Amino acid sequence: MDPLLQSLIIENDKKIVLLVLDGVGGLPAEKNGKTELETAKIPNLDNLARESECGLHLPIDYGITPGSAPGHLALFGYAPLSFPIGRGVVAAMGIGFPMKAGDVAVRVNFATSDASGNITDRRAGRIPTEKCDELCKLLSKVNIPGIEVFVQPVKDYRACAVFRGPGLSDHVADTDTQKVNEKPLDPKPTSEKGKKTAETAKEFIRQARELLKNEKPANDLLMRGFAELPHIPSMKDRFRLDPMAIAVYPDYKGVSRLVGMTVEDSCTDLAAQMSALKNNWEKHTFFFIHHKYTDSKGEDGDFAAKVAEIEKVDKIIPEILKLKPDVLIVTGDHSTPAIMKSHSSHPVPFLINAANIRADETTAFGERECAKGLWGIIKSPILMQIALAYADKILKFGA
Amino acid sequence: MDPLLQSLIIENDKKIVLLVLDGVGGLPAEKNGKTELETAKIPNLDNLARESECGLHLPIDYGITPGSAPGHLALFGYAPLSFPIGRGVVAAMGIGFPMKAGDVAVRVNFATSDASGNITDRRAGRIPTEKCDELCKLLSKVNIPGIEVFVQPVKDYRACAVFRGPGLSDHVADTDTQKVNEKPLDPKPTSEKGKKTAETAKEFIRQARELLKNEKPANDLLMRGFAELPHIPSMKDRFRLDPMAIAVYPDYKGVSRLVGMTVEDSCTDLAAQMSALKNNWEKHTFFFIHHKYTDSKGEDGDFAAKVAEIEKVDKIIPEILKLKPDVLIVTGDHSTPAIMKSHSSHPVPFLINAANIRADETTAFGERECAKGLWGIIKSPILMQIALAYADKILKFGA
Repeated sequence: MDPLLQSLIIENDKKIVLLVLDGVGGLPAEKNGKTELETAKIPNLDNLARESECGLHLPIDYGITPGSAPGHLALFGYAPLSFPIGRGVVAAMGIGFPMKAGDVAVRVNFATSDASGNITDRRAGRIPTEKCDELCKLLSKVNIPGIEVFVQPVKDYRACAVFRGPGLSDHVADTDTQKVNEKPLDPKPTSEKGKKTAETAKEFIRQARELLKNEKPANDLLMRGFAELPHIPSMKDRFRLDPMAIAVYPDYKGVSRLVGMTVEDSCTDLAAQMSALKNNWEKHTFFFIHHKYTDSKGEDGDFAAKVAEIEKVDKIIPEILKLKPDVLIVTGDHSTPAIMKSHSSHPVPFLINAANIRADETTAFGERECAKGLWGIIKSPILMQIALAYADKILKFGA
Repeated sequence: MDPLLQSLIIENDKKIVLLVLDGVGGLPAEKNGKTELETAKIPNLDNLARESECGLHLPIDYGITPGSAPGHLALFGYAPLSFPIGRGVVAAMGIGFPMKAGDVAVRVNFATSDASGNITDRRAGRIPTEKCDELCKLLSKVNIPGIEVFVQPVKDYRACAVFRGPGLSDHVADTDTQKVNEKPLDPKPTSEKGKKTAETAKEFIRQARELLKNEKPANDLLMRGFAELPHIPSMKDRFRLDPMAIAVYPDYKGVSRLVGMTVEDSCTDLAAQMSALKNNWEKHTFFFIHHKYTDSKGEDGDFAAKVAEIEKVDKIIPEILKLKPDVLIVTGDHSTPAIMKSHSSHPVPFLINAANIRADETTAFGERECAKGLWGIIKSPILMQIALAYADKILKFGA
């Protein structure tokens, strides 16, 4: 958002709800067929679409597949190319680790390697979080002179390491080749600045392998996304919103913390998320509600299960509407077509509902219906501008 | 394309075909009538449109009429305003002239002038290429101390002159007023840097008129588009594609060479172009197939002939589909409505077909059907981004 336009933003009590079905955008399972969203029985969302303004949004750019962090940043009103966030930071923020300026965080995946050091399972048989916790405690024995090392569990086989000390930087390449039957790479600096961190990480891995050598299946580890804390203005400073995140998964809490959201940390399912929304309704002016499993089922390639997750979200719509949000956006952070088993570049359907709108001719909440919506295809951060406007939070520009 | 996004591009074997019907966009011949494309009987393209994602594209900007070179650059994924190419360079590249840095090329049109020097025919009665060749040989007698001069035929009345020597620049205005019954202008520098080139061109014209004085009808010449070689990164460097151009007309081969395409130089018609496509299918990852005559007939103002040219292209669609391209784009480089007898600024219809797409409700390949397509109106270079994405050539951005 242009700084001049940003200066027009005012604070008021009106409430904006952003409901994100992670990876909701999809593709037909067969030629001329329907997408997941077009298949789902979602009477509440379809009704809402009929009374809303609809369109498709692009988190980053045409043809670009968004990761989760930039996908969400874009929905929060931040152009992702202007605010790159490394994977390590997303992981650290997700578990609420209090990173400081100069810290370097990195995502650690526990893995299995064979006698010759080749990776045989990049996820160590998807060990449970409890086991991950235990291994992280074991790794706290790593001792690197002059550097503080923090190792904390994230979820399943995923952990996060943070290095703290002078002269560190995130100019270090991943050790994870993303392939099996290969040795992991040594951490290598990508510039002179990354030298000390690369050496630190190398020593960490050496000691960690020693500590893990008798573990089964998690006798090895992979590192991805060395990252320093980026400088991102808060939603309070940028949009004069008092935002709250109501999410289940750590990574999404992490991105929310990066933009200064209050994070509801206790929810484990949609019902709890709805209770949290009700209980905190008077306290905030922006609510981000996140449902992860649409994306997970898409990544699994399970079309029917993704459809079922979409239908679950449909059922909470009346509860949200009962609170009478001034603006309600329903959308995804990117597409995750089940037939692709991955995120994709396809634009994401959205609806925006508010008092003063021109409901368009969209008759259902789906990719091709939203393509007929009045907004056409827009870059995702524009959604926040429209939401602020429809919540009467932007003054007139010019006399 | 943002450099950060460009860094996400990977190389793979998937094949992209870009089929360009030059100037295909049109206008109705009468109020509420159909355009050339809407009139044409094109069952193959209509079928393809039904199974594709459609839209309209703008090569340069709203309201801007593209020349051939920027129109094609835009389709090749280069924002034309960032890579200006002079007409002289297009002509030189088209005939395969090996320009060097510092050379200045200019398009030369043989013309007819009367006794007082007023132009009576800007195309010298459209003399055949053989005559043009002969005249160019005659002009090789021009002698300018310290400057090498090359004059070569292009097609019909069109030729190309290249000046080589120290201190030359392309800061020189056209001599062609684009009007008849007027004298051509003297070549004038548009800045101090153009002074020497303007003097060189003036001397060239003086000697040329002397050499041509007894020719009928080509007793004069006009110069357009003084141009130096621009610095354009190749499609290989920019998009990691191995591109081939299969075109008949010299200018389009020229633009293709500028972006580093291998140029198939022997084709004279669509049948030969299809053979070349088949014969080279395994050797490249990007194929640009160009059909000129849709534009020529539009320029001639011959609505029915333009319709017939579109129908000719429709017949080759099954041959292209038989090769199973991973991505197929069918479009034009600009509009050339027969009723305007010229290029125009109207957005150009396109379809893009690939495995993982959301076929939209476009029921035919035409301007107004494509306007209903899901992409809406986009800038032309975006098409390349979408094509790369649909050929799985762009990595995910961010964690």
